[in-house]
Amino acid sequence: MTYRAPINDILLSLNHGAGLAAAVKAGHYGDFDADITAAVLEEAGKFAGDVLAPLNKVGDEHGIKLDNGKVTTAPGWPDAYQRWTAAGWNGVSGPEAFGGQGLPLAINAACTEIWSASNVAFGLCPLLTLSAIEALDAHGSDELKTIYLEKLVTGAWTGTMQLTEPNAGSDVGALRTRAEKQPDGTYRIKGTKIFITYGEHDMTDNIVHFVLARLPDAPAGTKGISLFLVPKFLVKADGSLGDRNDIHASGVEHKLGMHASPTCTMTMGDKGGAIGYLIGEENQGMRCMFTMMNQARLGVGLEGVGIADRAYQQALAYAQERRQGKAAGKKGDGMDPIIVHPDVKRMLMQMRSMTAAARSICYATAVALDVSVRATDAKVRADAAARGALLTPIAKAFSTDIGNEVSYLGVQVHGGMGFIEETGAAQHYRDARITSIYEGTNGIQSIDLVTRKLGANGGASVWALLDELSATVKQVEASNDPAFGTTGPKLRDALASLDRASKWLLERLAAAPNDALAGATPYLRLFGATLGGCMLAGEALAAKANGEAEPQRYVGLARFFAENLAVQAPSLEKTVTDGAEAVNGADAVLLG
Amino acid sequence: MTYRAPINDILLSLNHGAGLAAAVKAGHYGDFDADITAAVLEEAGKFAGDVLAPLNKVGDEHGIKLDNGKVTTAPGWPDAYQRWTAAGWNGVSGPEAFGGQGLPLAINAACTEIWSASNVAFGLCPLLTLSAIEALDAHGSDELKTIYLEKLVTGAWTGTMQLTEPNAGSDVGALRTRAEKQPDGTYRIKGTKIFITYGEHDMTDNIVHFVLARLPDAPAGTKGISLFLVPKFLVKADGSLGDRNDIHASGVEHKLGMHASPTCTMTMGDKGGAIGYLIGEENQGMRCMFTMMNQARLGVGLEGVGIADRAYQQALAYAQERRQGKAAGKKGDGMDPIIVHPDVKRMLMQMRSMTAAARSICYATAVALDVSVRATDAKVRADAAARGALLTPIAKAFSTDIGNEVSYLGVQVHGGMGFIEETGAAQHYRDARITSIYEGTNGIQSIDLVTRKLGANGGASVWALLDELSATVKQVEASNDPAFGTTGPKLRDALASLDRASKWLLERLAAAPNDALAGATPYLRLFGATLGGCMLAGEALAAKANGEAEPQRYVGLARFFAENLAVQAPSLEKTVTDGAEAVNGADAVLLG
Repeated sequence: MTYRAPINDILLSLNHGAGLAAAVKAGHYGDFDADITAAVLEEAGKFAGDVLAPLNKVGDEHGIKLDNGKVTTAPGWPDAYQRWTAAGWNGVSGPEAFGGQGLPLAINAACTEIWSASNVAFGLCPLLTLSAIEALDAHGSDELKTIYLEKLVTGAWTGTMQLTEPNAGSDVGALRTRAEKQPDGTYRIKGTKIFITYGEHDMTDNIVHFVLARLPDAPAGTKGISLFLVPKFLVKADGSLGDRNDIHASGVEHKLGMHASPTCTMTMGDKGGAIGYLIGEENQGMRCMFTMMNQARLGVGLEGVGIADRAYQQALAYAQERRQGKAAGKKGDGMDPIIVHPDVKRMLMQMRSMTAAARSICYATAVALDVSVRATDAKVRADAAARGALLTPIAKAFSTDIGNEVSYLGVQVHGGMGFIEETGAAQHYRDARITSIYEGTNGIQSIDLVTRKLGANGGASVWALLDELSATVKQVEASNDPAFGTTGPKLRDALASLDRASKWLLERLAAAPNDALAGATPYLRLFGATLGGCMLAGEALAAKANGEAEPQRYVGLARFFAENLAVQAPSLEKTVTDGAEAVNGADAVLLG
Repeated sequence: MTYRAPINDILLSLNHGAGLAAAVKAGHYGDFDADITAAVLEEAGKFAGDVLAPLNKVGDEHGIKLDNGKVTTAPGWPDAYQRWTAAGWNGVSGPEAFGGQGLPLAINAACTEIWSASNVAFGLCPLLTLSAIEALDAHGSDELKTIYLEKLVTGAWTGTMQLTEPNAGSDVGALRTRAEKQPDGTYRIKGTKIFITYGEHDMTDNIVHFVLARLPDAPAGTKGISLFLVPKFLVKADGSLGDRNDIHASGVEHKLGMHASPTCTMTMGDKGGAIGYLIGEENQGMRCMFTMMNQARLGVGLEGVGIADRAYQQALAYAQERRQGKAAGKKGDGMDPIIVHPDVKRMLMQMRSMTAAARSICYATAVALDVSVRATDAKVRADAAARGALLTPIAKAFSTDIGNEVSYLGVQVHGGMGFIEETGAAQHYRDARITSIYEGTNGIQSIDLVTRKLGANGGASVWALLDELSATVKQVEASNDPAFGTTGPKLRDALASLDRASKWLLERLAAAPNDALAGATPYLRLFGATLGGCMLAGEALAAKANGEAEPQRYVGLARFFAENLAVQAPSLEKTVTDGAEAVNGADAVLLG
């Protein structure tokens, strides 16, 4: 089946859950005209449904082929990419000075969800290009920007991020690719990178690689890493393409999912070294790379949301169509659609509510990142930056966990048919699996949350957020709407658990860091479930207050999430605060 | 990497968690000599490691081929099957009168885990044969037994279970395959079955199909179903093979996993109808089929355990070998194996403890089924039958959920490498996915648990079990071993939650069945987590009491499970008791 972008859900989430409407009203978005949001998203939904969605299965089945250094993408993909750039979708949030539309990241976040839902392996390519744009825009010289930025913003050329090497994955500081400065100011780069997404393809006539490498005299570890721009084809002064650079795809991976996205081994230095141009300063590569990675982390979180929504839509359609058994207590002949069965309803509600919660967390991250650069008031910008930093690991890890869980349920709703590849449910399940690994595994995200984000300012960013969420819960309680069920008490308990767990972790971070690290993953889940629950409740309140059609849909959704997901908070709190000893005593159990 | 059967863990679980030692001591196993258990399992482990494990990846990569009605299995598979039957593994628990070894189901359960861990797609074939044996032995005529039973017990021929049709999956009563009685007392069967595992293959010279079909005058629904034995080749009076019967594989499925196991569409009636022999009485097919299905459900639970253990072993090995980063606070050069990181320890502990809990639940089910037929005292047999009936859906659903969760973590521990098929972690993840679907989806299991097992006798089976578990928790508390951490309180809380949730469900079952059905899935999880937690604690106590080497390993494992899994019980209880309204109000949210 095809994909229809859930525009109403997206707008409610963006404007109310994520706070775009309030931020616009407060003037933090300058002269941005929020009225265009719906129109942009409608068009995005149309493009996704018409052009990208039909290629999702084609890409999975055909995959890509590497032959003599050239990668051929699946049938229809180069053409779709041409339509993509022609329609301007590559530059939604790109700088206007370089051919972009300059729209907020928040709008692009909603678009990213839509691209990922329709065809995640396709959407991954511009996602990485966007990260490259951010890094180049923030740290590149004017000369490099002039040559490359417009090409990347419009999507005429795509970008790659080249960090990983066989012995340098999560520990990027261990990388060994070498860069030597040449008399002309360029660098010669030699080494091998692995897992390079869209490292080679046939959709554009040039590819701009962003490569981390080490200078001969560089300090060890992450302090000795520099970032280089390495084009596939060198670019002449007039902007036309020159010689082929010494960087080649020497292998592609056979993967569980994302078959249409080429994952390349890239070799530099067969002919003396690839020519690279320094971005930022020498040995400052990690800083530049983090610009790319934070952007990419939010993007990957949105992939989780997108895959989840696609899996949900497909499961919902199947549950309405497939007939097995009868509703409890029903007499007479004939079978009912399986959606009448409470256990199927449960699965669908779980899919929808988890997707909605992850969506709002991701969008809220985007709004925070927008305000951190767009607001006029420095304090507002700083607070928003702290909020964005706090939310990024949650947006990435919680949403991709949920992408996996929802696509699992999507298979389950289909029963035996779900295990058959033809059905398509299994593709979502396979594709989702990488999202909790790449751009920093979800374990890395949870460690980042505990050590860098919670720990950064004595927890100030967390307490500020908890205050806001607490106000939402008060409103739920004050609404006296019986349709909320036990939403109020469940969220109140969740907030108390999150508060206590945060304090416990802060205390242990100083006294016994391994205790804090042991609880990082359940803490992130606790955070996501609490935050998501409060956001969905806030959206339900907004739907009621704003006279949305059928506001009780959102009340029911928030209630389900509170009673099934946020309700896990007290258990997760105990796992964080009581569980460190068992985790850190693992060697005695595991090794013997 | 290869697979090594965890004999010590298996024996501790079998003897103490599952209660085999106590049942033998009480005389419920007659003259069974428990001393041979370890020797049988050692040999099974050797066969699995030497013969089956090396073919696991071969099978995944080659899959099977259907050509002109003939299925070719992967290279090495027919030979491995010959070795399997020659070594007598097919008949471990088969009746001695027909060439089996007559060992307890409990021993065979441990073997089934071992086969599934080494090569789940291979082990699936004898698993289904075993179900066929049970049905034939319990319900078949002496004549049919004489012709077919020894062949099935020794594995000379394999068996299939043919229930599913395109419009009859979970709702088996909707099946349409027709059987007409012939003057000679045989039946002619026409129809199409789908999803038939090992419906056709090249490992034996005959296949014995067990087919559900409907007589012309049969009542509607499950009351009008009869079971037939339909051989691929008819068998002559002297036992040699005669004519090819009119049943053919007309298609095979392209699946997410289990590539080596042929999943066939079977067509009967191209040439007038397949000749079938009635098993049991006309219209009593469902009763016969349930004999097969309960056996198969436990077997599928053990597949979950086996896949989980294989995934765990592989992840543990990788975590000890792969170096990234340094332990927190460590100075100096060089990277540490990733197992030093608390988040990796957490994943491995989760994998190991969940696997161990699921194992004990499955083995306990097998012990109950054994005692229900082997004990001399009728009351003991009846109680054991009730216990076995109660545990079967938990063994199936909890263990296969865990097979999926553990193999998910197995991929995660491998990071980016986990997404690459070559690594092998992804195969476990793909293979596991069907186990929560076939032999009754896990949703069906949870409904069975709530409506038929909890509801059967006013909860008596549940209260009896809770009393036993409560005694274990008392012992944990009395042990005063600080290494148990908060295991005692966590399990005490879990038992209280399970008790309250059970009572609530019983009450609702009568008053508002849809409320009970809405909570079925979280209730089964609550049950599994509580039961598994208490069993692991009991095993730790036994390890201490019996002077096992390193008993504290089992204490640490039990503690981790209590603090991370059983701790979720109070939240799950609330989901059961507070969540029905949100589930049953789903239509207003989902449809609109």
